[in-house]
Amino acid sequence: MRQLNVAIIGCGTVGGGVWQALRRNQDLLEKRAGIRLRVSCIVVKDPDKKRFVRLPKRLVGSDWKVAVDDPKTDLVVELVGGVATARKVVEKALGLGKPVVTANKALLAAHGDSLFEKAKNRQTGLYFEASVAGGIPIVKVLREGLLANRFPRIYGILNGTCNYILSRMQEEGEDFSSILAEAQLNGYAESDASLDVNGLDALHKTAILASLAHGFWVSPGDIHVEGIRHVTNLDIGFADRLGYRIKLLSSILSRKQDRDVTEIQATVCPTLVPYNHGLADIDGVFNAINVHGDIVGETLYCGQGAGAEATASAVLSDIAAAALDSLKLADGTAEPTAPCSGCQWQPFTALTQNGKVIAWEDVVSKFYLRLTVTDAPGTMAQIANVLAENTIGISSIIQPEGHESSSVPLILMIHDASVRAMNQALKRIRNLSVVKAAPVMIRVDHFQ
Amino acid sequence: MRQLNVAIIGCGTVGGGVWQALRRNQDLLEKRAGIRLRVSCIVVKDPDKKRFVRLPKRLVGSDWKVAVDDPKTDLVVELVGGVATARKVVEKALGLGKPVVTANKALLAAHGDSLFEKAKNRQTGLYFEASVAGGIPIVKVLREGLLANRFPRIYGILNGTCNYILSRMQEEGEDFSSILAEAQLNGYAESDASLDVNGLDALHKTAILASLAHGFWVSPGDIHVEGIRHVTNLDIGFADRLGYRIKLLSSILSRKQDRDVTEIQATVCPTLVPYNHGLADIDGVFNAINVHGDIVGETLYCGQGAGAEATASAVLSDIAAAALDSLKLADGTAEPTAPCSGCQWQPFTALTQNGKVIAWEDVVSKFYLRLTVTDAPGTMAQIANVLAENTIGISSIIQPEGHESSSVPLILMIHDASVRAMNQALKRIRNLSVVKAAPVMIRVDHFQ
Repeated sequence: MRQLNVAIIGCGTVGGGVWQALRRNQDLLEKRAGIRLRVSCIVVKDPDKKRFVRLPKRLVGSDWKVAVDDPKTDLVVELVGGVATARKVVEKALGLGKPVVTANKALLAAHGDSLFEKAKNRQTGLYFEASVAGGIPIVKVLREGLLANRFPRIYGILNGTCNYILSRMQEEGEDFSSILAEAQLNGYAESDASLDVNGLDALHKTAILASLAHGFWVSPGDIHVEGIRHVTNLDIGFADRLGYRIKLLSSILSRKQDRDVTEIQATVCPTLVPYNHGLADIDGVFNAINVHGDIVGETLYCGQGAGAEATASAVLSDIAAAALDSLKLADGTAEPTAPCSGCQWQPFTALTQNGKVIAWEDVVSKFYLRLTVTDAPGTMAQIANVLAENTIGISSIIQPEGHESSSVPLILMIHDASVRAMNQALKRIRNLSVVKAAPVMIRVDHFQ
Repeated sequence: MRQLNVAIIGCGTVGGGVWQALRRNQDLLEKRAGIRLRVSCIVVKDPDKKRFVRLPKRLVGSDWKVAVDDPKTDLVVELVGGVATARKVVEKALGLGKPVVTANKALLAAHGDSLFEKAKNRQTGLYFEASVAGGIPIVKVLREGLLANRFPRIYGILNGTCNYILSRMQEEGEDFSSILAEAQLNGYAESDASLDVNGLDALHKTAILASLAHGFWVSPGDIHVEGIRHVTNLDIGFADRLGYRIKLLSSILSRKQDRDVTEIQATVCPTLVPYNHGLADIDGVFNAINVHGDIVGETLYCGQGAGAEATASAVLSDIAAAALDSLKLADGTAEPTAPCSGCQWQPFTALTQNGKVIAWEDVVSKFYLRLTVTDAPGTMAQIANVLAENTIGISSIIQPEGHESSSVPLILMIHDASVRAMNQALKRIRNLSVVKAAPVMIRVDHFQ
């Protein structure tokens, strides 16, 4: 059995998880892949730091350059996180023609195009199963399992922290900040949770999935993103009365596809999901991806989207794939039909030169609208007039009774309208004297 | 771009679906895989038969031997179905060193061991994604995506026809035979549905998944199977009152694993699934597989398990994989680390020589028991005594009131007990004079 030497750069949560999982199942993994895997080096910032795993002293290094450069290193596993150092690590390894496994969604979303280009030029591979949805092998499913399909619709719950917070808000009736604080205490949220709750983590994953599915490089900057900070208990409660749950939903919809240009709609935002849809049931830290293929129909993939172990499962699967590809390259038997990555399936940028994400303003959707209004005659008429003038239809209204204060909530469910029309109407509505606070607008998706 | 010539043997539902899907997405598939695919021949029993797809006359042949033998044929896709002819087709192709793609679960369950052995000896590949759970790429997920995991628990709803019938029985309150007749009318069940409703189709898929997950050849003959014919509305109703739905459930549980022998429990039978478990929500013709990996944790995969299109999606993915592997073999660059199948991942029989499925009698489970008894003093005492003598505990009892007849149903929920103990007790219970009909025993699973 041939052997591959693996340098692991970074040993935080994910790196520690990979080391532990490898300790547990190395025999099995080697038998299944038919390759001997040897961790030759684990690079950490501070070798003396206490960690949740014990690392053999002889393997621990503190200079990633030495580890990557080492001629004995066949494969580099980048688990540094962040963008700055991680980018240098990956670029250096690829520059040396060494394959790289990474779980780094932020890095790929920011610099994936140039990194994949570099891998292609150096005839080596960049593997990233762990970068989206943790333990769910969604990259493999899209790239290989559903290879024969176009993807008219992909929906995802891609951030476990947000999903945990929203689930708990729904169950407990407590507000965002107290649930967040509790989640931070028990380890379900980072101490700096802004990447998660502002939607950026989900955004990075959405950009990667969109690129994979549609064959052009989708930049995160082109995707509309909203986090969950503005989702209140009031909204969760009204949504519930209307038959919906609020989820931070990624959606990637195919809009137009012809020879010249592929147009998609890609968004990450809190969304009202009907109770009877499978994604409404995905609770807590779980991730789920609902993939519509034009041949296969609707499919659903669900599992833990983060955490040391789930992510380690994906990293190890990629290490095995990279190891196999890499041995082929070492033999000079690189697959000539897939010149770009050293792996047998074309990377996602191989398909289309021209792709485009439609602007948020042009997105057409149903909406949930919560206004804070004066409980006085004529209020509804004024609001309804503004909506009518912007050709926006109302599908249902809730105005709860029994409020003593002069300001009451008014919930409007809006028929399909463009974001542009909604923004125009809301600008005018906000200026009405009967409207007492900034309107709250949340997307509604019926998955049709 | 290099070209591969594909002979499709058999053009029924699946073959027609593959042809149509290839017509629709051939460009995309070729771009993604980086290979040109050319269907060189479609072999059918009767070239003049009317079919739901139009086949180009020049491609249609009627002699599979000629097509497989043809030196121009690079890849054989066996979609004949059944075991007799299909086996000959696959053996001949593998014998010639030609890779084979098949959707044939019955063939693999019956002769997979010798067919994989043949593929190994001839250094070619046998691809079978489409044989389990239609469009859900579960074979790829288990073999590659979750490569680093052991699989303590796998549960599946693997037969769409049974799931459709049970879902409709639950919704409509109608009995098995009328729902089956309706399903046959509208095409959700074959005119001869016995393979489905007797559980054999699910059995074949379960044998394949168990072999994949545990690395030894699991024969269908070693797996306990019950169909759904004996599931009545009465049982569905009582299960509902107790908080369960009845599903035809495949379960593959790891029982003991050491150097010498791997012991698993594998069963296919109607099972009470608690409402709060994800599998209880899988309705209609959908399939779902719940996979517990020791590293990744719990994951769920869901999609259409049968039908022309879903199955075609899997067949095309396998054609692309086989094509890529096959070009490597043609170059003499077969991956030396995976000598067994021509594909880069070891086939599932590579791991363990000694594996064993524990006998049904030794299975320990909770059970639902429905007895038909005389509504007279002492009845419960007699039954409870027999159970107690066999050390079987009762966790709850329903004896519905209001029956006028002398015979009434008595529902007992049984704590963990072995099938052996249950059978012994039921033999005695059946002979009690207060018991008026054969007892009904259905497994209960709490997925713990």
